[in-house]
Amino acid sequence: MSVTFADIEAAAARLKGHAVETPLIESPALNERLGRRVLLKPETLQRVGAFKFRGAYNRLVQLTADERARGVVAFSSGNHAQGVALAAKLLGMPAVIVMPRDAPAIKVEATKGYGAEVLLYDRLTESREAIAARISEERGAIVVPAFDDPHIVAGQGTLGLELVRQAQAAGAKLGAVLAPVSGGGLVSGVALAVKALSPDTAVVGVEPEAFDDARKSLQKGEIVVQKATGRSMCDALESPFVGEITFPIMRRTLADIALVSDAEVAEAMRYAFRMLKLVVEPGGSVGLAALLAGKVAAGGDAPVAVVLSGGNVDPDLYARVLRGEI
Amino acid sequence: MSVTFADIEAAAARLKGHAVETPLIESPALNERLGRRVLLKPETLQRVGAFKFRGAYNRLVQLTADERARGVVAFSSGNHAQGVALAAKLLGMPAVIVMPRDAPAIKVEATKGYGAEVLLYDRLTESREAIAARISEERGAIVVPAFDDPHIVAGQGTLGLELVRQAQAAGAKLGAVLAPVSGGGLVSGVALAVKALSPDTAVVGVEPEAFDDARKSLQKGEIVVQKATGRSMCDALESPFVGEITFPIMRRTLADIALVSDAEVAEAMRYAFRMLKLVVEPGGSVGLAALLAGKVAAGGDAPVAVVLSGGNVDPDLYARVLRGEI
Repeated sequence: MSVTFADIEAAAARLKGHAVETPLIESPALNERLGRRVLLKPETLQRVGAFKFRGAYNRLVQLTADERARGVVAFSSGNHAQGVALAAKLLGMPAVIVMPRDAPAIKVEATKGYGAEVLLYDRLTESREAIAARISEERGAIVVPAFDDPHIVAGQGTLGLELVRQAQAAGAKLGAVLAPVSGGGLVSGVALAVKALSPDTAVVGVEPEAFDDARKSLQKGEIVVQKATGRSMCDALESPFVGEITFPIMRRTLADIALVSDAEVAEAMRYAFRMLKLVVEPGGSVGLAALLAGKVAAGGDAPVAVVLSGGNVDPDLYARVLRGEI
Repeated sequence: MSVTFADIEAAAARLKGHAVETPLIESPALNERLGRRVLLKPETLQRVGAFKFRGAYNRLVQLTADERARGVVAFSSGNHAQGVALAAKLLGMPAVIVMPRDAPAIKVEATKGYGAEVLLYDRLTESREAIAARISEERGAIVVPAFDDPHIVAGQGTLGLELVRQAQAAGAKLGAVLAPVSGGGLVSGVALAVKALSPDTAVVGVEPEAFDDARKSLQKGEIVVQKATGRSMCDALESPFVGEITFPIMRRTLADIALVSDAEVAEAMRYAFRMLKLVVEPGGSVGLAALLAGKVAAGGDAPVAVVLSGGNVDPDLYARVLRGEI
């Protein structure tokens, strides 16, 4: 059940013409501020506004005709939801998505907009796993995990493949690559690709201070489950544990995990608005936040690439961040 | 004093390594909505957050050593101001910028941030031309016009050069290109490049309903000066007349001029936020606004390219637009 670089290359071939090859962009002002080249991979420009389409499509396109007829079910706070919903629509199969009642409205509406059936649940009193299992049993629908699945990891890895090749084309020898961590699907896929193509590049995961289970897990050498004590403004990064498939890859490939506070995330979102003109959601901003807060030593002053993993943020929250209320 | 395609190619060579080659991006969701391929040229990602850096740098880099020592003076509501200020900083010359007191704060601050001396004037009671002329006389500073200058037009034209080549690389045979119109520097430069490389592509200018002097001028065959009756939310597009240099180019090259309302501009800004994850200022959104409002027939269902010319919008105004108050 592990994932290889060949799996990522195969996923890239499947995604060609379906996913957006997002550009790698550079801001002279940001370079000057950081004293090193910073290459941004705005997956905000991906279909559904987040990298999640890559893994979802790579998973769903490999289902058999019989499986497609039965449809899929997934649970997600929003970006995986949209990725699965759109991939299912494109591939002509029904999708049921189980989402928390407090998920960002923009994510719930978009998921419905792609034609999926959305079931809302209460984050505190109900089990999303149980709801998904019931749907799966009743309808025979295939459960599509958000991160702990080799096809999902390989799909997200296509982002890393593009990133390294685009950086090479831009003449940048990457010292480090930063990617957000929740369940580890993105960071493990990206790290596999980066380590295959550019072994000397350090891959650093970034997670919210309030959800630092990945860092604790790497320190302890086993998966540590986060106690549900607090919330982060990064709704996309609230997985309380990393996966059985993603964790071994992370152990093998990650140089470090940096932590960022909500205040640092909000500051990064404002910087992206003001200086980069990019709309980035809280969870998508953690890499930029870590850089701006001076929390990334990896790679020294060599070029660093940052994955801006998604841009699905409610207008109300965004307006509050812009006004400095967060 | 006319401008040729060779001037644009020469400008592109001067800008290489100094201006950002902004990507040409595509949103499957937007394509689906419009029923045609839409290629977006986000000059929001350009230095200073707007295309204006191109023309300003192309003008300033050609000044003699003696002229550089005397410095430059410009008047602008904001984007040309920033373009001149940054180009002057990079080239090591002093810059004085005359800006209206009601210019967006984000533009005034950025201009100061690039080291320029900013003089604020009252739009209703003072003449910015007179203030600039006085500075020029007192200090010997070179006046850098915002649009009516062949080097400025050639610089802005580099955007069109990139756009057509990027569209060709993406396999898109462009039916039309849309660009905002204020004084006509951008649209005339872009049109010269487009017509040289792709003669069958229609170039359409877009301007705010309240500042439709370019359309009236083209209809009448002479430059019509806009009476200062109203305001548009597009602070970047409030020039009351097109230029002596830009107008003949516009007459020769433009297929049409479309008009958009403030409500259509606000809707386009929200669409760019929600679906494209791009921060676009009001004046930068007019092309997208015209498309979304169904006001562009040019090119039929052939691919259309849209210049998103700038992203310098105050957070307060942006928040109001997101909340639907405008």
